[in-house]
Amino acid sequence: MRIAVCPGSFDPVTNGHLDIITRASKTFDKVIVVVSRNSSKNYMFTIEERMEMLKVSCAGLDNVEVDCFTGLLIDYMTLKNAHVIIKGLRAVSDFEYEMQMALMNRKLNQDVETVFMMTNSKYSYLSSSIVKEVAKNGGCIKGLVPDLVGEELLKRFNIGG
Amino acid sequence: MRIAVCPGSFDPVTNGHLDIITRASKTFDKVIVVVSRNSSKNYMFTIEERMEMLKVSCAGLDNVEVDCFTGLLIDYMTLKNAHVIIKGLRAVSDFEYEMQMALMNRKLNQDVETVFMMTNSKYSYLSSSIVKEVAKNGGCIKGLVPDLVGEELLKRFNIGG
Amino acid sequence: MRIAVCPGSFDPVTNGHLDIITRASKTFDKVIVVVSRNSSKNYMFTIEERMEMLKVSCAGLDNVEVDCFTGLLIDYMTLKNAHVIIKGLRAVSDFEYEMQMALMNRKLNQDVETVFMMTNSKYSYLSSSIVKEVAKNGGCIKGLVPDLVGEELLKRFNIGG
Amino acid sequence: MRIAVCPGSFDPVTNGHLDIITRASKTFDKVIVVVSRNSSKNYMFTIEERMEMLKVSCAGLDNVEVDCFTGLLIDYMTLKNAHVIIKGLRAVSDFEYEMQMALMNRKLNQDVETVFMMTNSKYSYLSSSIVKEVAKNGGCIKGLVPDLVGEELLKRFNIGG
Amino acid sequence: MRIAVCPGSFDPVTNGHLDIITRASKTFDKVIVVVSRNSSKNYMFTIEERMEMLKVSCAGLDNVEVDCFTGLLIDYMTLKNAHVIIKGLRAVSDFEYEMQMALMNRKLNQDVETVFMMTNSKYSYLSSSIVKEVAKNGGCIKGLVPDLVGEELLKRFNIGG
Amino acid sequence: MRIAVCPGSFDPVTNGHLDIITRASKTFDKVIVVVSRNSSKNYMFTIEERMEMLKVSCAGLDNVEVDCFTGLLIDYMTLKNAHVIIKGLRAVSDFEYEMQMALMNRKLNQDVETVFMMTNSKYSYLSSSIVKEVAKNGGCIKGLVPDLVGEELLKRFNIGG
Repeated sequence: MRIAVCPGSFDPVTNGHLDIITRASKTFDKVIVVVSRNSSKNYMFTIEERMEMLKVSCAGLDNVEVDCFTGLLIDYMTLKNAHVIIKGLRAVSDFEYEMQMALMNRKLNQDVETVFMMTNSKYSYLSSSIVKEVAKNGGCIKGLVPDLVGEELLKRFNIGG
Repeated sequence: MRIAVCPGSFDPVTNGHLDIITRASKTFDKVIVVVSRNSSKNYMFTIEERMEMLKVSCAGLDNVEVDCFTGLLIDYMTLKNAHVIIKGLRAVSDFEYEMQMALMNRKLNQDVETVFMMTNSKYSYLSSSIVKEVAKNGGCIKGLVPDLVGEELLKRFNIGG
Repeated sequence: MRIAVCPGSFDPVTNGHLDIITRASKTFDKVIVVVSRNSSKNYMFTIEERMEMLKVSCAGLDNVEVDCFTGLLIDYMTLKNAHVIIKGLRAVSDFEYEMQMALMNRKLNQDVETVFMMTNSKYSYLSSSIVKEVAKNGGCIKGLVPDLVGEELLKRFNIGG
Repeated sequence: MRIAVCPGSFDPVTNGHLDIITRASKTFDKVIVVVSRNSSKNYMFTIEERMEMLKVSCAGLDNVEVDCFTGLLIDYMTLKNAHVIIKGLRAVSDFEYEMQMALMNRKLNQDVETVFMMTNSKYSYLSSSIVKEVAKNGGCIKGLVPDLVGEELLKRFNIGG
Repeated sequence: MRIAVCPGSFDPVTNGHLDIITRASKTFDKVIVVVSRNSSKNYMFTIEERMEMLKVSCAGLDNVEVDCFTGLLIDYMTLKNAHVIIKGLRAVSDFEYEMQMALMNRKLNQDVETVFMMTNSKYSYLSSSIVKEVAKNGGCIKGLVPDLVGEELLKRFNIGG
Repeated sequence: MRIAVCPGSFDPVTNGHLDIITRASKTFDKVIVVVSRNSSKNYMFTIEERMEMLKVSCAGLDNVEVDCFTGLLIDYMTLKNAHVIIKGLRAVSDFEYEMQMALMNRKLNQDVETVFMMTNSKYSYLSSSIVKEVAKNGGCIKGLVPDLVGEELLKRFNIGG
């Protein structure tokens, strides 16, 4: 079975993320979407909230699981017997950073391959941070995130209620 | 009347910004230079100081106004009946970020168009942050910022007096 | 009156070109779409055919004219009293080439400004040459070019009749 | 079974191509390497020679086949019941062109997904044309192409014998 | 004597840095590796520790010195009678930032020239921060940093003892 | 003695080329500007004419020689005991192509190092081909090429006499 892992911070998951996860689910036998516990960045949502939003959003995709990990992605993959990392590409700057990460991961484990998939061009401008910025300022985020996520964002910013 | 809006943080305005503002003022009937109140970044100058420096620097351009806004740029534009956002381009990394912002703004309001204008190549290396870095270390910033701004920067760093 | 010139080879015009022309027509008082007579490249359509396809495709845009020119674009603009060149941007490689051309045109005439507008992201992959390649091999080009252009392409490749 | 198609002109196959083909063969159940018959470019080797060199070079990879096609890649894929296109990435310019092709192919057939894999960084400078240029001028191409290909190139340039 | 200066934060020095320093030492008569005292960033190692690791790592290169500076690099260079700044390039994003710095330094002192040298492609993914991230999570960093630096990193993260 | 080689087609030499050659002449003990005899491209000027224009243009630079070569640059450099290749950088697309060439040359000869120098930003849009295009269409090329070259270009296009 071909298992692919789709890592990210998903703070929160956007329709661009879901687009890539859906494409991955058609291309590999099983896809594990994983949220990293490591980062020292400040997140809006806790890791549990982010996983919950992912689970609800991916409910219709039978071969997709949601999980989280601590430590190195490469170690998590060995544990899960997964050999493919999925990364979505939007732009050149994405590409360079992801290439650096992919080469490092290859150095750490030669059996792991990173494959890049392309977001639908209608999501090419989408990122979790731009969605949060728009929501914070009262802009309409319909169509940019799953409905559930939209509601959570509005609650955080005390809008719409 | 064709009204264009030129947004930025202008902390402080540089000769590169003025170059773009001047080009915009020749290309559109009216240009509003706006400083955003939103950002959570730390600025060296208050919003009032930044607006004041912009006003003095743009004094010779009859069809240019200076203003500030809170919330979404797209809402400010509706208020002002403006349909064009002006962004200056220096480099590829500028371009990608600005493209993302422009696509998001287009999603939020289809009637707003972002147009990109090119800085004079002699300012291609200029940014507010590099100017502050140079001034802080006692480097000569003549020709990089309006004289008034140069004096303000020297005061902040207790230089030259 | 703000006159903008939108130059290109348009061999043939695509929906990506029309997207930019439409945006330009809303942003400036008058837009002249011009086909260059200079190039030594081999074209599929004659300059008259290319102009005719443009005219039919732009028929609904009242402030858009179609023309052609010989020599330097900058000289044509002086003749027409136009001060703005419109270029559509899709990708980074576009950007660099267009930046080079814009700087050269600025050197040749300081009063001419190049402004860049962004294609709808759904056309980000579109170019005249890729459309011709697809049509030549019998692929469906519906939605990529105006209907009239689609029919002309099929005739050239002896398809569909 | 997950079938991936790896298209190219392979004039001739290099060790960079083989690196990507090998990675693809580990990531998918079956890989078909296909040489296009369409292009109007001038090639050094005939399509039969290019296929022969690929076959010998891929002999050790059990799940890799070599084939050629006429027309659209997307039609070939339907015929073979393949849903994945593999493209190797070396640099930013690769990336933009391939992204354009991938979006066009997705438009032509929504069920086909392009996945990008990264060349070993030691081959990041390698291309068929640079290898031919070096060989033509008598430079050493050992390690850049399979031995068989190296011998064929030397024969063409009447070197070494 | 041609003196070149190789500035950086070196927190800590990696094998990618050493690769560039070694190439510089063969290309110029004398190379001074300098650590800046200015930055407001948080570093893992003190400036003394970073210099010490550089000194041990460069011990085999006779014409290389290690130093630090406060203020503007350009002023330090005048002091040392050095006219060449060496910067290593890995990727496009490096390139744009370094180009901006180089143009600013040229503006500050016309006699100073920045030259860019290319890292060995096997280090193209290497940076101090990615090495720290891997070490922190228990990944193997052998071959990425000098042995001494590897030991220091393990000590910091309480690993391996 | 540090000998640097500055290769190119120089068809014809522009002020951008001269800017790089001048900077190189200050950075290395001796600079050899070499025109390649290999290329299958069509040139406007013969190799002798291109060398002559270079010689006149570089007459004021004491440590600069002009030469031509056949075959591989790397072999020419061994012959001349030169270890440094100088390349001018203007833009990202330059950078990627040059990086590819530099890595190939390093593969062919480990003792040769390519160093990149940055053109004056006022020449960032300049290339031999754009100058020829402008001259052909009667545009003013003053300031873009040495006077001698300007006169030669006008003669070719039967202008100005």
